Amino acid sequence: MAGINKDSFQTIKENYYPSFEGEKYLTLAEPADSFLLESGISLGPVTVNYQTYGKLSSRGDNAIYIAHALTGGSLAGEPPCQGKERGWWESLIGPGKAFDTERYFIVCSNVLGGCYGTTGPSALDTRTGRPYAMKFPVVTIKDMVRVQKILLDHLGVKELVSVAGGSMGGMQALQWAVTYPHMVRSVIAVASTGRFSPIGIAFNQAERQAIMIDPSWCRGQYYGTDFPRKGLSLARIIGTITYRSNESFEQRFGRSLQIAGERNLFAFDEQFAVESYLNHQGEKVTYRFDPNSYLYLSKAMDLHDLGRGYISFQAALKRIRCIVFLMGISTDILFYPQEVRGLAVEMRRCGVEARYQELKSPHGHDSFLIEFKEMEAYIRECLSSLE
Amino acid sequence: MAGINKDSFQTIKENYYPSFEGEKYLTLAEPADSFLLESGISLGPVTVNYQTYGKLSSRGDNAIYIAHALTGGSLAGEPPCQGKERGWWESLIGPGKAFDTERYFIVCSNVLGGCYGTTGPSALDTRTGRPYAMKFPVVTIKDMVRVQKILLDHLGVKELVSVAGGSMGGMQALQWAVTYPHMVRSVIAVASTGRFSPIGIAFNQAERQAIMIDPSWCRGQYYGTDFPRKGLSLARIIGTITYRSNESFEQRFGRSLQIAGERNLFAFDEQFAVESYLNHQGEKVTYRFDPNSYLYLSKAMDLHDLGRGYISFQAALKRIRCIVFLMGISTDILFYPQEVRGLAVEMRRCGVEARYQELKSPHGHDSFLIEFKEMEAYIRECLSSLE
Repeated sequence: MAGINKDSFQTIKENYYPSFEGEKYLTLAEPADSFLLESGISLGPVTVNYQTYGKLSSRGDNAIYIAHALTGGSLAGEPPCQGKERGWWESLIGPGKAFDTERYFIVCSNVLGGCYGTTGPSALDTRTGRPYAMKFPVVTIKDMVRVQKILLDHLGVKELVSVAGGSMGGMQALQWAVTYPHMVRSVIAVASTGRFSPIGIAFNQAERQAIMIDPSWCRGQYYGTDFPRKGLSLARIIGTITYRSNESFEQRFGRSLQIAGERNLFAFDEQFAVESYLNHQGEKVTYRFDPNSYLYLSKAMDLHDLGRGYISFQAALKRIRCIVFLMGISTDILFYPQEVRGLAVEMRRCGVEARYQELKSPHGHDSFLIEFKEMEAYIRECLSSLE
Repeated sequence: MAGINKDSFQTIKENYYPSFEGEKYLTLAEPADSFLLESGISLGPVTVNYQTYGKLSSRGDNAIYIAHALTGGSLAGEPPCQGKERGWWESLIGPGKAFDTERYFIVCSNVLGGCYGTTGPSALDTRTGRPYAMKFPVVTIKDMVRVQKILLDHLGVKELVSVAGGSMGGMQALQWAVTYPHMVRSVIAVASTGRFSPIGIAFNQAERQAIMIDPSWCRGQYYGTDFPRKGLSLARIIGTITYRSNESFEQRFGRSLQIAGERNLFAFDEQFAVESYLNHQGEKVTYRFDPNSYLYLSKAMDLHDLGRGYISFQAALKRIRCIVFLMGISTDILFYPQEVRGLAVEMRRCGVEARYQELKSPHGHDSFLIEFKEMEAYIRECLSSLE
């Protein structure tokens, strides 16, 4: 667990889910500064927190990598022992489930730049003995994927049956197919595209500014002192609006008041139920996520562009050798379904076997974390079509 | 100009457009506290800043009231003398234009709660001699409309050919038809609905929080000291995203970088052109708008519900006697076109002559301030169909 800052980041992680026997770490890029990032800057050592489910076959060819979204962690399936939180795709990962752990060896790790055990801005910079904070270098989706590749090599994985994820997880899955075309047999990318949209960048910028205008942020030097809770909470509120949809809010809250009564109607705070819900979502994240990680990971999303480093976007797509399953969500206002469908069309033009499906759901972008029945059926269908 | 705070609000207004001969003010609700708000709280005196264009007929029946949106003011048409800014609907108001000042007497006033000359949180509370700040009472769209009615009575207007506006302006137009059904012959409401949506409330809440987490906000007591510029700027950035659309951002910026070059690609600030554009929009508003007004007017939008005060939403609609022209914008993510169309359907069920039209535009909600050619044709069509 080299490079882990026990004071701050560990507290966040403990709040999210307590440490347990089954926690796994790998430290790579030693000696220091030996991991070369896409930006040209070197980083190291890099510690990776990961989870595995099921058993790797002797040929190392039954693995599936699950990639998490912005504020997720390696705990995708059932926790190895009793934890506070359930895995974020627990309904989909396990014996007999869509990602059947009796057949597949499932791996999920916390991304580079994260705050759940993998080196990120809250980790200790071994050169200074203090947290990196804003001295942490900008990382990209491609950097995350390269770390995951080293982890999988270490675990003896030779081939991936699939790389699957939603949102930022889908970005990683798509990047896998471009960066390591010969290792991946399929990609399942939900609510994700080949390059992040300008409106996505716009919302992410607003979220970053929310953190950065909080005076407690102190240019990222808040470790050991107070977190910029208000800023992070507001960032999460903006994010949550874009992860849902007006349909979803209409169904759940409409214009109903949080505290009924005429008096409250002319109050300023938390008047409507939807406001109270958002404040609650905002507050919750401040007990489990590092604000600087939020800045770096949202920046990595902004930088997501499969074409970077190749002569064109199409040249990057042409590298892909696997089947690509793309799912758009009908009410997604962050990754518009027409964009996801557009990527499928562009991939097919580049000779990729890309299949598009649309999930009809009122719940917006976050549907991949909500509509488990539909996700279960979809993933089963994708994986069985590989046989 | 009773109740106007020269120190702060006036500075804002001066920045927006300098004072000129033709500026008009009306002070109503004297003695103090004689204007009873929907909340049950009394306010007064109330000063209203307004503009008129064209001449009122002797019968007082050729008037059109133009209602402005969130950060607008009374300068809708051509300024009476050379000003820094053009009127926000200047292309539509004037001799021979859609709102033909050779035929119609056009009136536009700054809304109650605003900061361009009408009493709002930056105005002086005559009881204390200091700005109201957050002691200003919550005001509603209905309160704004009641102030406008008093102004029109004062000007001798007997009948309104139309009340027209977009966004919060459309809310006022619709409220006019419900509150004063016998005075209004038509309503032209663009990108507006009968009650604000939960996602609209959600975004407004985020915008208000942006202002309120800025330490310079000081619970609204910033007059005479620094404005919460960063907070207001962020509020405007969030707002601007919702006033545009991904299509619009794709067309204008795509993923292009503000400062080209590999180095900037891995920087944190203003990397993408869309970020730079939004920062510019955010900064601009801090030189022309009062943050507390932003809080009160966005709250008034949240409270917009034509049904409040009546036994039902339908009961309110059934009061309407005039033709209602509703226009939705195809890419609007704040007032979804299906919602606007839904209001037209509901109105017709209630016996109202409501007509729906959709403006196909990539520019999102703000199209009513951008697509002047289409707006011109639409308004001409609406007004000529009244003859």
